[in-house]
Amino acid sequence: MNIAIDVMGGDNGPGTIIKGSIDYLSENVADLSVTFVGNRDLIEKELSNYNTSSFHIDIVNTTEVVQMDDSPSSVFKTKPNSSMNTAIKLQAEGKVDASLSTGNTGALMVASLFILGRIDGVQRPTIPAIAPSQKGNVIFLDVGANLDCKPQHLLQFAIMGEVYSKIIANEEKPRIGLLSVGTEKTKGNELTSSTYKLLENSDLNFIGNVEGYSFIRGGAEVIVCDGFVGNTVLKLLESFAPLVKHSAEKNPFNASEFGGTPFLGINGICLKSHGNADPMAIKNAIVTAKKLYSNEANKIIKNHIKDVFDVIKS
Amino acid sequence: MNIAIDVMGGDNGPGTIIKGSIDYLSENVADLSVTFVGNRDLIEKELSNYNTSSFHIDIVNTTEVVQMDDSPSSVFKTKPNSSMNTAIKLQAEGKVDASLSTGNTGALMVASLFILGRIDGVQRPTIPAIAPSQKGNVIFLDVGANLDCKPQHLLQFAIMGEVYSKIIANEEKPRIGLLSVGTEKTKGNELTSSTYKLLENSDLNFIGNVEGYSFIRGGAEVIVCDGFVGNTVLKLLESFAPLVKHSAEKNPFNASEFGGTPFLGINGICLKSHGNADPMAIKNAIVTAKKLYSNEANKIIKNHIKDVFDVIKS
Repeated sequence: MNIAIDVMGGDNGPGTIIKGSIDYLSENVADLSVTFVGNRDLIEKELSNYNTSSFHIDIVNTTEVVQMDDSPSSVFKTKPNSSMNTAIKLQAEGKVDASLSTGNTGALMVASLFILGRIDGVQRPTIPAIAPSQKGNVIFLDVGANLDCKPQHLLQFAIMGEVYSKIIANEEKPRIGLLSVGTEKTKGNELTSSTYKLLENSDLNFIGNVEGYSFIRGGAEVIVCDGFVGNTVLKLLESFAPLVKHSAEKNPFNASEFGGTPFLGINGICLKSHGNADPMAIKNAIVTAKKLYSNEANKIIKNHIKDVFDVIKS
Repeated sequence: MNIAIDVMGGDNGPGTIIKGSIDYLSENVADLSVTFVGNRDLIEKELSNYNTSSFHIDIVNTTEVVQMDDSPSSVFKTKPNSSMNTAIKLQAEGKVDASLSTGNTGALMVASLFILGRIDGVQRPTIPAIAPSQKGNVIFLDVGANLDCKPQHLLQFAIMGEVYSKIIANEEKPRIGLLSVGTEKTKGNELTSSTYKLLENSDLNFIGNVEGYSFIRGGAEVIVCDGFVGNTVLKLLESFAPLVKHSAEKNPFNASEFGGTPFLGINGICLKSHGNADPMAIKNAIVTAKKLYSNEANKIIKNHIKDVFDVIKS
């Protein structure tokens, strides 16, 4: 696999991102080629700190940088040759198989969508997140790409979440829960009530409604929700983390464990790491990209969505 | 003030509820009359543990009990003489000024709504909750009474939340935030985008959008959201509390501090305490009821909603 890594995003500068990449290469030298995208001088300066003679490394020089406060919808046009866009374009051109950025999430989603498009059959690409519940990791989605959803969108999130859980968390048969306000089938709003029927009639391992407790207490491996509530849950979990960090107990919140989040449903492998990702997070994001690539995640998503929606139509 | 207290709800039995009430009376003997509603024998047995000669205490005997798993919509009709319904009926009959129950929330909301009705001008009564942020208590609403909301409902929640914050948390000019996925005005879903405009044009102290971080980090005294997302936030906070309890730092989660939650917008004072409320929580719920009563909360809500909606219509 060849991965294009945008080194110009994020809060910590190119050094952190390059160190994480070198850490991965040091352990898996035959496994990966890396194309660093950004300011060539900065990249070469950072690389001079390492012995890279055995690694497959390319550099693509860019001058434009997407800022965290750039408007996602306009920056795609105003900075077409940004490091972010360029990394994704390399994927569209078949020069790399995946891309990774720590930059502006909205801008990255727009660029992925415009440059790579959607997997056949996917209506809305989605951003998943992982909650460290007391019974293991819980993948929940969407967390902000889709704020006003229809039941079919949530069904597609469930399918993509299932594939992601199988590949990343090695769950053989992940339990899919629908976030609602009570576990009974009758509890919910208009969106969840309609979604419940779709999930119930699918071949997914749907266990019914789950509640806000499940992100901490566990009970499902995948939780489906619209992007508005998912975004709120994600930010609440992020603000909890420092409170638990000082606890005598093991801190269940470890953002570096997976390191990067794929945009599921994009016709390519686009990962976003947190703006303040450390080298460990970058390294683990590459591991995630590798798993999605090796397991042909997008092919599985395409086929599964086709199967489920063929049943709905028939 | 005379308060009717349903002693048959909750997980801990009448003893806990009666102890909390006695604790209040012991400190405020001239301030309150209590009407205990439930099984007379059980109540008298518990009361025999105390010297109640100086207290104003009545007992209303009932035989039906609403269970936690009773359907809210049907139990109102199938158990019309339950301790829960009876406590609220006493308020409708003018025999008491407020009521308190630890039982089934949905059943209590239905009973309050059917027996007491809504304050003039209120479209949807709402259940608030309190998050213990690092910068003080944050009232957020709705937390489950209204799962599918319109912008006008959220505007009314803001008004009721402001009144609640002033009376309960002694905030002179509470800051009202609208829960969304970003602080910028343009960030949000269809509901919040329309609600933003209403709040912006009201005379409320509206500070704009807030995010999921604010429940822990603070920044607003009142956060407005629909009941689906508010319910999820509440349950996440509840499941997070035990993780922090063991922390070396001060636990910010103390459910007993306010003890009871009013149903705002009901034409009466109906409080719900948690099913596992301890005596301290019951005592503090009575304090809350007293504040709402003394400060004429419902009159203020009625007038403020009239003022705001007169402006909208004009």
